Amino acid sequence: MTLTNRQLIYVKAPTAAIDPSVTSGTFNLKTTTTIDRNNVPSDKVLVRIHYLALEPAMRQWLTAKRSYIAPVKIGSIMRGQSIAQVLSVGSSLTSQYQVGDWVIAYSGWQEYAVLGAKEAQKISVPEGCKPTDAMSVLGMTGLTAYFGMMDVGKPKAGDTVVVSGAAGATGMVAGQIAKIQGAKRVVGIAGSKDKCEFLVRELGFDVAINYKDEDWKKQLKEATPEYIDVYFDNVGGDILDACLGRAAQFARFVICGAISQYNVAKPKGPANIMQVISQRVKMQGYIVFDYAKQYPDALQDLAKWLTQGKIKRKEHIVKGGLESAPKSLVDLYNGVNTGKMMVEVVPAEEGIRAKL
Amino acid sequence: MTLTNRQLIYVKAPTAAIDPSVTSGTFNLKTTTTIDRNNVPSDKVLVRIHYLALEPAMRQWLTAKRSYIAPVKIGSIMRGQSIAQVLSVGSSLTSQYQVGDWVIAYSGWQEYAVLGAKEAQKISVPEGCKPTDAMSVLGMTGLTAYFGMMDVGKPKAGDTVVVSGAAGATGMVAGQIAKIQGAKRVVGIAGSKDKCEFLVRELGFDVAINYKDEDWKKQLKEATPEYIDVYFDNVGGDILDACLGRAAQFARFVICGAISQYNVAKPKGPANIMQVISQRVKMQGYIVFDYAKQYPDALQDLAKWLTQGKIKRKEHIVKGGLESAPKSLVDLYNGVNTGKMMVEVVPAEEGIRAKL
Repeated sequence: MTLTNRQLIYVKAPTAAIDPSVTSGTFNLKTTTTIDRNNVPSDKVLVRIHYLALEPAMRQWLTAKRSYIAPVKIGSIMRGQSIAQVLSVGSSLTSQYQVGDWVIAYSGWQEYAVLGAKEAQKISVPEGCKPTDAMSVLGMTGLTAYFGMMDVGKPKAGDTVVVSGAAGATGMVAGQIAKIQGAKRVVGIAGSKDKCEFLVRELGFDVAINYKDEDWKKQLKEATPEYIDVYFDNVGGDILDACLGRAAQFARFVICGAISQYNVAKPKGPANIMQVISQRVKMQGYIVFDYAKQYPDALQDLAKWLTQGKIKRKEHIVKGGLESAPKSLVDLYNGVNTGKMMVEVVPAEEGIRAKL
Repeated sequence: MTLTNRQLIYVKAPTAAIDPSVTSGTFNLKTTTTIDRNNVPSDKVLVRIHYLALEPAMRQWLTAKRSYIAPVKIGSIMRGQSIAQVLSVGSSLTSQYQVGDWVIAYSGWQEYAVLGAKEAQKISVPEGCKPTDAMSVLGMTGLTAYFGMMDVGKPKAGDTVVVSGAAGATGMVAGQIAKIQGAKRVVGIAGSKDKCEFLVRELGFDVAINYKDEDWKKQLKEATPEYIDVYFDNVGGDILDACLGRAAQFARFVICGAISQYNVAKPKGPANIMQVISQRVKMQGYIVFDYAKQYPDALQDLAKWLTQGKIKRKEHIVKGGLESAPKSLVDLYNGVNTGKMMVEVVPAEEGIRAKL
């Protein structure tokens, strides 16, 4: 029994923005090789891709010359993670996988893939959770928020906590963890009125500030009458600097990301650096991979909080199948999403309960 | 029996540099009230001042409007710490002081002072140590170096440690403590060839870099082939930035001072701030007063190391009596000193063994 596959091939390096046309743009849609479902190599699994994750880093994967990862090659399938379900298991892997298992797949942008065991990591779906959680709260996103808050920021009861990039996938989990830890006041900083309303109404942030407002610094001051005990930074630049100016004594500054500075030729250091001495601030960077041994315990906490409703997930799922991925990536850079952005490859109604 | 006292009175606010004349300058010498040695108030002690400490902060005490301490008032004795010896004890303090005791005195710039118990703190002089050590290695200077290194920097065997302001009173102790803790390579940064030679020849630093050399950044790179594990910062600005560019993974940046930035209208933040994430740097400010409860233990360690010769003291003692203080303060800002700068009020030959 053979299956027809469709793929998005990276065909033309963008000079500036990505061209979303799937016939003449950056990526071209190709109907391709058939896969024999009953004849999977012994060391592989055949998976069906349900959701593609869209990442801010993707633009850099295309053309960056000195990145942490090699660029995608012209003519190959666009790189990307997905949530996929196992359709067939090669004979040497039957002790590891069963048909129907959910996996995080390093599949790239296509509908089916034949993968080795390292490229298809089994995920468990705790009660009350969904397979897609493995790409947000129960994946790298949630783990990044978890270790930044729990190991570096360590909010205590009564603390004021500020999160920048708060409507982003990591920021929104970080703010909610601060609340769970008993923070008195959680303030989010985001880039639109809608995002700010979402943070306060749906996620329980106490205040949210739109940094595009002219008086955002005044708003920040008013929102932190007892100064800032923990600052979780995703953006760097002026917002980091302003928060340093509001640091409380013995504040912890969690340096998770600096998205405002990634594409700047001459990054700007925080002019309020002297506050580090006068307020005894601890400013600390970290990388989630350093905590790999503690992932299982952290995921247990995150799954519990998700099931209890103490953490609310927010996915931005784009319908329209594989071919909507290029356009959605353009939208991601325009900031249309609140929460983790994914493309639904298999329609949900047939998806999660799809015939295998 | 009465004593004649001499004092330096703050008479004229400097607009830029201090005018060192003691008849027409910033401070005027005044021969003043006699003190009756046999008639000290019951809750006071009469002390004779032997050494005045000169501090970089003094210029700010004169005219700064929003400092951590109120400015000195025109018409009053210039503020300052001293090493003094008790001459007479008021009747209610005889259980606390004996004639001949050495004290750290909050006396200001004069030859004798009548002080309450809080203004005259008894110091013990461990074997092999001197009363003046209480103003350098066994005082705030040494304690500042101690807690910055031991509690924040935590150098381990094999580490590369860099100290800026290394020929200053705090920096030189910090570097020597790093060596005692087993650091593999201790690099000092200072502002003259003489200071650099002193650090290497007399204090055992492995390398010293003169930041006035044009190629100091290149020298820093060569001196830190395995990057920087601990950076003890007294200066801020460009040197902090360059050291951040050389940070090793999990480096600890001890932010003790930022003397290069104190008089700058718009302080400059470190442009290499992104290294904090990629190298997982912990950058932490601290203030020595926060460790007050641990002073006794720390002083025990410091006195032991001083006696054993593992820490070498360096005092810059100016002879010439009380009237040389204003000129010496001007010299301090010109960087003439290596080590703690003090003015000898009572000549040493009659001083330590002076008739009481």
